[in-house]
Amino acid sequence: MAYTELCTPKRIIMTPGPVEVDPRVLRAMSTPILGQFDPAFTAIMNEVMEMLRQVFQTKNHWAFPVDGTSRSGLEAVLCSILEPGDRVLVPIYGRFGHLFAEICERYGADVHTIECQWGEVFEPGRVIAEMKRVNPKVLAMVHGETSTGRMQPLEEIGKACREQGVLLVVDAVASIGGVDVKTDEWFIDALVAGTQKCLSVPSGMAPITYNERVEKIVLARKKVERGIATDEDHAYTRSMRPIASNYFDLGMLQDYWSPRRLNHHTEATSMIYALREGLRLVLEEGLKARFLRHKLHEKALIAGLEAMGLTLFGNPAHKLPCVTCVEIPNGTDGESVRSMLLDEFGIEIASSFGPLHGKIWRIGTMGYGCRKDNVLTLLGALEAVLIRHGVKLNRGEGLQAALDVYAAEKTKSVVMN
Amino acid sequence: MAYTELCTPKRIIMTPGPVEVDPRVLRAMSTPILGQFDPAFTAIMNEVMEMLRQVFQTKNHWAFPVDGTSRSGLEAVLCSILEPGDRVLVPIYGRFGHLFAEICERYGADVHTIECQWGEVFEPGRVIAEMKRVNPKVLAMVHGETSTGRMQPLEEIGKACREQGVLLVVDAVASIGGVDVKTDEWFIDALVAGTQKCLSVPSGMAPITYNERVEKIVLARKKVERGIATDEDHAYTRSMRPIASNYFDLGMLQDYWSPRRLNHHTEATSMIYALREGLRLVLEEGLKARFLRHKLHEKALIAGLEAMGLTLFGNPAHKLPCVTCVEIPNGTDGESVRSMLLDEFGIEIASSFGPLHGKIWRIGTMGYGCRKDNVLTLLGALEAVLIRHGVKLNRGEGLQAALDVYAAEKTKSVVMN
Repeated sequence: MAYTELCTPKRIIMTPGPVEVDPRVLRAMSTPILGQFDPAFTAIMNEVMEMLRQVFQTKNHWAFPVDGTSRSGLEAVLCSILEPGDRVLVPIYGRFGHLFAEICERYGADVHTIECQWGEVFEPGRVIAEMKRVNPKVLAMVHGETSTGRMQPLEEIGKACREQGVLLVVDAVASIGGVDVKTDEWFIDALVAGTQKCLSVPSGMAPITYNERVEKIVLARKKVERGIATDEDHAYTRSMRPIASNYFDLGMLQDYWSPRRLNHHTEATSMIYALREGLRLVLEEGLKARFLRHKLHEKALIAGLEAMGLTLFGNPAHKLPCVTCVEIPNGTDGESVRSMLLDEFGIEIASSFGPLHGKIWRIGTMGYGCRKDNVLTLLGALEAVLIRHGVKLNRGEGLQAALDVYAAEKTKSVVMN
Repeated sequence: MAYTELCTPKRIIMTPGPVEVDPRVLRAMSTPILGQFDPAFTAIMNEVMEMLRQVFQTKNHWAFPVDGTSRSGLEAVLCSILEPGDRVLVPIYGRFGHLFAEICERYGADVHTIECQWGEVFEPGRVIAEMKRVNPKVLAMVHGETSTGRMQPLEEIGKACREQGVLLVVDAVASIGGVDVKTDEWFIDALVAGTQKCLSVPSGMAPITYNERVEKIVLARKKVERGIATDEDHAYTRSMRPIASNYFDLGMLQDYWSPRRLNHHTEATSMIYALREGLRLVLEEGLKARFLRHKLHEKALIAGLEAMGLTLFGNPAHKLPCVTCVEIPNGTDGESVRSMLLDEFGIEIASSFGPLHGKIWRIGTMGYGCRKDNVLTLLGALEAVLIRHGVKLNRGEGLQAALDVYAAEKTKSVVMN
């Protein structure tokens, strides 16, 4: 059987990821590769580290991608820090909090969780009180929770963790590049990002950063592995066990990303090219302008959905700007609406997980996909599809409301894209 | 500071990987992405599974890439099969045998090793005798060892493993797509490949396959994790512990690659496009023709190097066709030669590891990079650089000998590229 050339339909991807990749990133990926130790390539690796520091708003020395999808970054950080029996506190407000807890459990940690209703976030005081009660080694928290479209304020929690000597590990996969993530100002010790959301790069890398508080643990465990740990190292490794994973061992990864370039894996060349171009696009646009752009299109989308007569899900005070959750109208088959959007208009929006399954749709306005044409096309298409599904709507109002938002913002000369 | 557009020098990459990517693969990567659950994308995932089965020469149901560089595939297979205390036998004949042993140790296995001199492979009888003595759960072996340029015959060992009830796990990262790898005929239970060598796809994925003997362990451990293991499952999981890694849990990976598409990671879309095109190129050329092409260019390269007056390293009876190791002439600075090749000719060849460090160069003729123009350009350049380094050579003989090989093969109408 012969296989044809790759043929893909044209899509408008408005899920919470993976989202449309910027054409400049796609072009960068088609650049012929270099050898991993070619000075021309290691120079590119160093540039990527510099650019990541800027996007992460950190002075940390270590900022590099783990070669795997987003959750590979979570696992690399957690398995490098945590030893069997270590206490971890995971406040859960959606699906990705559960992932945090699961990874920690698999590596043998003593996992404590608190939960709040999906659609809400934690009042920081509650997390801080629980942190003081449990006194964990690590507090692991999601910043932008795509499953519920919420964003957890972290600054107060970070400050309390630092005072208490607790390491704060943050999943910023959905928020990085779309909303402010202040690694240093918020006292985040290790932060994990993703490429396939607001950075508009394909899935397959997990950029991370961590500070010297994390590095001390990593280095102590490396000495354990080599049998050269000193008394001082014992302060950083309770169990005196090496990191369980070779692939995710931050000690080996940082040696590879250091000027020594100690051989570990073979860096994923084309994905590095993609990441570099994605980061370059973020820095060219400027963090502040980029975050304003995400807020603008969120505002237009929300105005359109509400004017149409739909109801948003979740506490609006803590909405994640790049993910908008919409309640599926009573009696409407949400999957049928999604299929028709895809089949007739080539537009993809997302369903949802767990307790929200069948109850909400999730619409992403992330990175390159966060554009006026996408928002307007979706609003028009969604109205048409919902009418076909017998939903009573304020016909024509959605697009009018969104256009009003764009017209009003134009007079305020906000960056428009 | 502003970053410029990505600029890369033109290179001829003749290392044992990563090697030049086929231009068709680069083009495929620049295709706009699809959502991970888009039916158009899941159809592509299914095609990739089919193509992998053909390239792996297997009827196994499971054949899919792990989203990470080659060693991520090794770790996924090993951590899914091995439980703490499980006995493993690793016969080591180069660097990647040591990696096998290290990964197994980190996951708590009871690792037994035997070693042979670098440049040799094991006499199968020795491995089989040791396997019977140790009676391990797993025998882990490298098929093509890039560090020494050797290839281990596996058929006899595989047959003995199957008879003994030992699982054979094989690292075919360097051999897949360049030389025969008969997963089923050789009784291989789990096989791990790489993309960045003879498949001519960028680094970043580890295609794997495994049979139902491995799957039974994976499924039993999944039941343990969910607390629903039965007596029958105990036969497949001694420790009754779930798989330590979430990212590398083959049970979760196969659920994601099954028609159920249970959400795990977000598949690395552009790398899937690349892998699909790389596999399509292999199948279009045909496995047999492709292996003959690798033999042809190896023959020309060897003829050229020897006619020039250089000495090959290692036992020729077990040479890996796609990697040719050359002794660095006495008194020559191998790194200086490599630098001059790169700086003056844009050609990259590899240094070496461990006991061979400073003693040999390694030249890759892999996949798309395995071409007449590359072989001839390298031979001419290497002669020039060695003369500059004061090495006494049979001037002009290298290229003549290689041209003779090509002329002779042309009359035999072997596939030429």
